[in-house]
Amino acid sequence: MKDVAARAGVGLKTVSRVVNGEPGVTPDTEKRVQEAIEALGFRRNDSARVLRKGRTATVGLVLEDLADPFYGPLNRAVEEVARAHGALLINGSSAEDPDRERELALALCARRVDGLIVIPAGDDHRYLEPEMRAGVATVFVDRPAGRIDADVVLSDSFGGARDGVAHLVAAGHRRIGFLGDHAHIHTATERLRGYRAAMEAAGLPVAGSWVSLGSTAPDQVTATARTMLALPQPVTAFFAGNNRVTVTLVRVLAAAERPVALVGFDDFELADLLRPGVTVVAQDAAALGRVATDRLFQRLAGAHLPPSRIELPTRLIPRGSGEVPPAP
Amino acid sequence: MKDVAARAGVGLKTVSRVVNGEPGVTPDTEKRVQEAIEALGFRRNDSARVLRKGRTATVGLVLEDLADPFYGPLNRAVEEVARAHGALLINGSSAEDPDRERELALALCARRVDGLIVIPAGDDHRYLEPEMRAGVATVFVDRPAGRIDADVVLSDSFGGARDGVAHLVAAGHRRIGFLGDHAHIHTATERLRGYRAAMEAAGLPVAGSWVSLGSTAPDQVTATARTMLALPQPVTAFFAGNNRVTVTLVRVLAAAERPVALVGFDDFELADLLRPGVTVVAQDAAALGRVATDRLFQRLAGAHLPPSRIELPTRLIPRGSGEVPPAP
Repeated sequence: MKDVAARAGVGLKTVSRVVNGEPGVTPDTEKRVQEAIEALGFRRNDSARVLRKGRTATVGLVLEDLADPFYGPLNRAVEEVARAHGALLINGSSAEDPDRERELALALCARRVDGLIVIPAGDDHRYLEPEMRAGVATVFVDRPAGRIDADVVLSDSFGGARDGVAHLVAAGHRRIGFLGDHAHIHTATERLRGYRAAMEAAGLPVAGSWVSLGSTAPDQVTATARTMLALPQPVTAFFAGNNRVTVTLVRVLAAAERPVALVGFDDFELADLLRPGVTVVAQDAAALGRVATDRLFQRLAGAHLPPSRIELPTRLIPRGSGEVPPAP
Repeated sequence: MKDVAARAGVGLKTVSRVVNGEPGVTPDTEKRVQEAIEALGFRRNDSARVLRKGRTATVGLVLEDLADPFYGPLNRAVEEVARAHGALLINGSSAEDPDRERELALALCARRVDGLIVIPAGDDHRYLEPEMRAGVATVFVDRPAGRIDADVVLSDSFGGARDGVAHLVAAGHRRIGFLGDHAHIHTATERLRGYRAAMEAAGLPVAGSWVSLGSTAPDQVTATARTMLALPQPVTAFFAGNNRVTVTLVRVLAAAERPVALVGFDDFELADLLRPGVTVVAQDAAALGRVATDRLFQRLAGAHLPPSRIELPTRLIPRGSGEVPPAP
């Protein structure tokens, strides 16, 4: 700053005013200071400012998958709430890898974020305890934290899946396939639990060949679905554990020989314009992000709250595919 | 670290080995050190490490909109290339606001990223010159930088739009509507330029009432499209300037009284499963991200390259909606 002041021929206080956007500087002086800053390649050291003030007005978001459209509205809601609080949001994606999640969360902490919102990929978050004790407010969203006590905001995966499967049962289905994400993912097992609860409530047995947890890669899902459709007693309906699975099943069923019913967890763009429209159990992804970020800022504002678990309801949206009766 | 060493009853070197994951520590000792770290809430100061090493192995990505599916594959490609180079990626979104873009890009620089990939919202990037001179490698993607000389990787918006509109002309259309994003967005004006070039090449006049640049909010696009369809001489086809506009037009046309042709810039999920399938001018969003990040790492590896402009070709994918003939 001394160099800038010398080059611009002004005092240190004037440079400080220009840099911090404070009033009391003539346009001409401001221009000279800006030019000196330009010429010297001066960079404001935000890290140093941070250490003085204590808070950085930055929150970090650990995303799960940058390309999964389900997270779009969630991410945007987090950003909007952060912005409304005058905070900057920095994200990174774990790409569904627990090591990556840990590396990223700690890297954001090392860059001194005030708070952290985590869509967890792993199931052991004890690595965050020292950060949380050091004052980093932390809220988990979409899936709970593992092995630590922390705020979590999620959808009612169990209840949503149960209602969706009950809807298929009500349409007359008895053999219903379930295709979900990997078993280590909390939402996948919760939704499977909902499927089993609905089947049990209807007094229906569940064959092992009707249930599959694993990769949601299109090839994998396609192969599994075709196997279930080729059973001696084939399934007549599918419940899809998330939007990635649903979209692949829409393709598989468009090419199937007979009509097969489908209900998917998560709504998705254009679901209503397909023929038939796709019946879904919709989560409010934006509300998940909003509620989690509100909670984070309550903590940042100094509220002393016990860790809470907030579960948001889901909503069944019938559009046609879930009302297809069993093929004779 | 002294406190940790004292509490664990080991030397400083041992603590350092554990923290940096180096060999030569017994599991029992490692456990004691980890417990001491836990108990003391010790945090490794990555910023200090960075300053010593010079490089942080972190690159920043300034996104445009966290919820636009077009950017999903682009973002993921940037992340994959960064990861292949052992670098961590930190993102933030400008939400299409030039001030926000500047704030975010400078915040990432202040957190000492090695390099920056920017999907620009603004059209004046002189604020980045001091950072670039200070050694922050910077590559722009999807849209060019404004008022500075910098690497840019983009799609051939002009050529793609020209080909898409020529395709509609070839199907017999003479009155073709163009709906695009705001005029300050480079891709929007380039695509409009492509539309005008195709119309001119076919010897067709363009009425002012057929062209609209502005908000891509569904309400806005719906109202504009309906106006064009209600003209005394209504348009018989639309060219949509991006995927957000296309998706809204699909809804409008599904409710239209007569068949109207549609070609959209950008491919999107399920476009092929709609009836009719939606004809698009596809960009390779993943390639945009990959090529830009490759360029960034060439610069980070010390390559002295003049700023370059790399333009990737687009591809017309006929699926039905663009081959609908004009209604009589």
